[in-house]
Amino acid sequence: MRTGLDAREAQRIILEAVQTLPPEVCAAALARDRVLAEAVVSARRLPPWAVSAMDGYALHGCDLEASGSTLRVTQEVAAGAPPGAPLQPGETARIFTGAPVPPDAAAVVRQEDTERRDDGVVVTVGVKAGENIRDAGEDIEVGDRALVEGTPLGPAALGVLASVGRSTVSVVQRPRVALLSSGDELIEPDGDPGVGRIVSSNSYSLAAQTQAAGAEPIYAGIAADTPEALETMLRASLDHHVIVSSAGVSVGDRDYVRPVLDRLGCELIFWGVKIKPGYPLVFGRFGDTGPLVFGLPGNPVSAMVTFEQFVRPALLKMAGERALFRPRVRARLGERLTKGAGRLHLVRVVLERSGAEIVATSTGNQSSGVLRSMARAQGLLIFPAEATELAAGDTAEVQVLDPRVLATEDSGL
Amino acid sequence: MRTGLDAREAQRIILEAVQTLPPEVCAAALARDRVLAEAVVSARRLPPWAVSAMDGYALHGCDLEASGSTLRVTQEVAAGAPPGAPLQPGETARIFTGAPVPPDAAAVVRQEDTERRDDGVVVTVGVKAGENIRDAGEDIEVGDRALVEGTPLGPAALGVLASVGRSTVSVVQRPRVALLSSGDELIEPDGDPGVGRIVSSNSYSLAAQTQAAGAEPIYAGIAADTPEALETMLRASLDHHVIVSSAGVSVGDRDYVRPVLDRLGCELIFWGVKIKPGYPLVFGRFGDTGPLVFGLPGNPVSAMVTFEQFVRPALLKMAGERALFRPRVRARLGERLTKGAGRLHLVRVVLERSGAEIVATSTGNQSSGVLRSMARAQGLLIFPAEATELAAGDTAEVQVLDPRVLATEDSGL
Repeated sequence: MRTGLDAREAQRIILEAVQTLPPEVCAAALARDRVLAEAVVSARRLPPWAVSAMDGYALHGCDLEASGSTLRVTQEVAAGAPPGAPLQPGETARIFTGAPVPPDAAAVVRQEDTERRDDGVVVTVGVKAGENIRDAGEDIEVGDRALVEGTPLGPAALGVLASVGRSTVSVVQRPRVALLSSGDELIEPDGDPGVGRIVSSNSYSLAAQTQAAGAEPIYAGIAADTPEALETMLRASLDHHVIVSSAGVSVGDRDYVRPVLDRLGCELIFWGVKIKPGYPLVFGRFGDTGPLVFGLPGNPVSAMVTFEQFVRPALLKMAGERALFRPRVRARLGERLTKGAGRLHLVRVVLERSGAEIVATSTGNQSSGVLRSMARAQGLLIFPAEATELAAGDTAEVQVLDPRVLATEDSGL
Repeated sequence: MRTGLDAREAQRIILEAVQTLPPEVCAAALARDRVLAEAVVSARRLPPWAVSAMDGYALHGCDLEASGSTLRVTQEVAAGAPPGAPLQPGETARIFTGAPVPPDAAAVVRQEDTERRDDGVVVTVGVKAGENIRDAGEDIEVGDRALVEGTPLGPAALGVLASVGRSTVSVVQRPRVALLSSGDELIEPDGDPGVGRIVSSNSYSLAAQTQAAGAEPIYAGIAADTPEALETMLRASLDHHVIVSSAGVSVGDRDYVRPVLDRLGCELIFWGVKIKPGYPLVFGRFGDTGPLVFGLPGNPVSAMVTFEQFVRPALLKMAGERALFRPRVRARLGERLTKGAGRLHLVRVVLERSGAEIVATSTGNQSSGVLRSMARAQGLLIFPAEATELAAGDTAEVQVLDPRVLATEDSGL
């Protein structure tokens, strides 16, 4: 087992071990934000006929100009009705938005560009051939690939699925992620805090991070600080795609995660990544088909930060996503930061716009136990491994955790 | 009623009419991504005692240096146990991560920085006072505001809620949005396409847009092209926060939305915004307490684009969000675009990185019926109202619809 890896190398090893999950069939109504695992080929032509894009009058090709001559209204075509009889020169059809245009109609003139007379209609503003007509198949032809494989099913893609009449669709499976904690000091939120006990908040933050990555968290519970308890809980989690445990992965006498995984037949791939917070990270897998295992450190911030850097990209890749990492901004430091050389630090920061720039300020106490400062953090500032000082006014890369930071206060219109 | 507004003015009027919704109580377990409507004050101190951050030995203030003298191990403190007896000089306590440190312990030395002897322990690497101890209350003190009002409940904030023992929480209500379409040509996806009929895809795309904005869509159905049908459906939707209809808002004989709203007592505030796609937009409200009404155009792309520009920011404001508009990027045009003066165009574009730049290319046919091109669009390029040409190589602002565009292919670590 390798140990003491650079963060980038650890990510590379993890992503190399991750495969996109196989497809499953999903009701289109439940497929929002899933990734399409098939090309959707349309069995329909859309629109099925040439239709009017306006309320107005359908004109024969001989009558497109504002000529002053009166056209006879020989038919009326409503939306949802059949296209009607062929149009002759000198004739016009009253037509409504979405209604099929009659055969031989060359254009539709908007009703506000006509004058109604007793004996018919006069065109006051001429139109060009094809104007205000949406051609049959303009959107989709029979046999067209309406959506390509790998498309994330956003609002428009879901509309396209409905248009072509698909009620089920093949999508990449969502990773199922078993979450477990270990530690005799941990209680569930409804437990008795008593002496020396704290709520296992990691279950809540890691479950939310799992959901935010589009995966499904399954909460396995809190294992007591014995190898037997941990083994029972890990064994029960083996049928998930991913197992994420927190705590128990350091070098202490009671850090049972590694020996228990070993005993269960898990291939331990690496232990320890040179970052702070979060050095004691274990990554392993149960062969080519069993679950991936991430043993995260137990401190709340360390658990969240290592999930963010190592588990999230793996879950996104499993779900068929392509861009696996957070947006980054180049931010100016609002204050001086120092550290020792050797480990890359991820500094919790608040981000504020200042003119065209973004200013990053530490959320304060960077202890890995201070979850509250993680709740305030909008980004993680990358303080490179070998650097020891970043001066106020320097710039640094910041991973943006909260997409709200990138939203704007005006629309740009 | 005002008509023919600039897009920016229309947004201003809408947001002025929108209030943040009142709070409601929500189970903490269901509160992900909701906006906090209270300040969460902690009734707990976290951690409740000073705890060890490592597996190692707790030392008295007199024994912090690597002196070569042997310390007697007089107690062992496990996580979840009480803090134990006060430590005397020359004594040490075996201690585990998360366990409360004994009274009078000044620091914890990591076990890898000690040597075990038969009669005790020798410190091989000295520690500073306070080292490897997390102070009581380091994260949160009793009475601290653990989370401030207005905080979006992301993973860390949900962890904080669990830590302080909160199982319910006051959050801003989610807007309930009634969605209805009108048009005799529309069918549900399981309906018979027959002659001249098409699936009402707007219900699907608008519902997904509503959900993506954090609001709750309630599907009211398809109203037939009669004032009576529309009135019945609108009346049944009056107890929602927002009503969004599509189609029937133009100037045609069968565009009943405006007259029916008027008859129901809706104050019609404006009609028509100088943008393309999407001119025929109606905005109104039922007094100060009734629903806001958006009558969107019926063409699939026009409906989605007007939702994006006018409904989405309103829903976000109602839900207590602060940044209401999409991130924008400055993109270089991959091709020449032209239009007439007078209306602002929102051009569907694909965005691709090219070195440090982003290149925007039209998705092709910009007809407002071509939903497929909306499904491909990653952004909407702002082609200003009075401009008539953007040359290839010019730059323009692009609203980013798909946050994946901003994600990166490497982590930056």
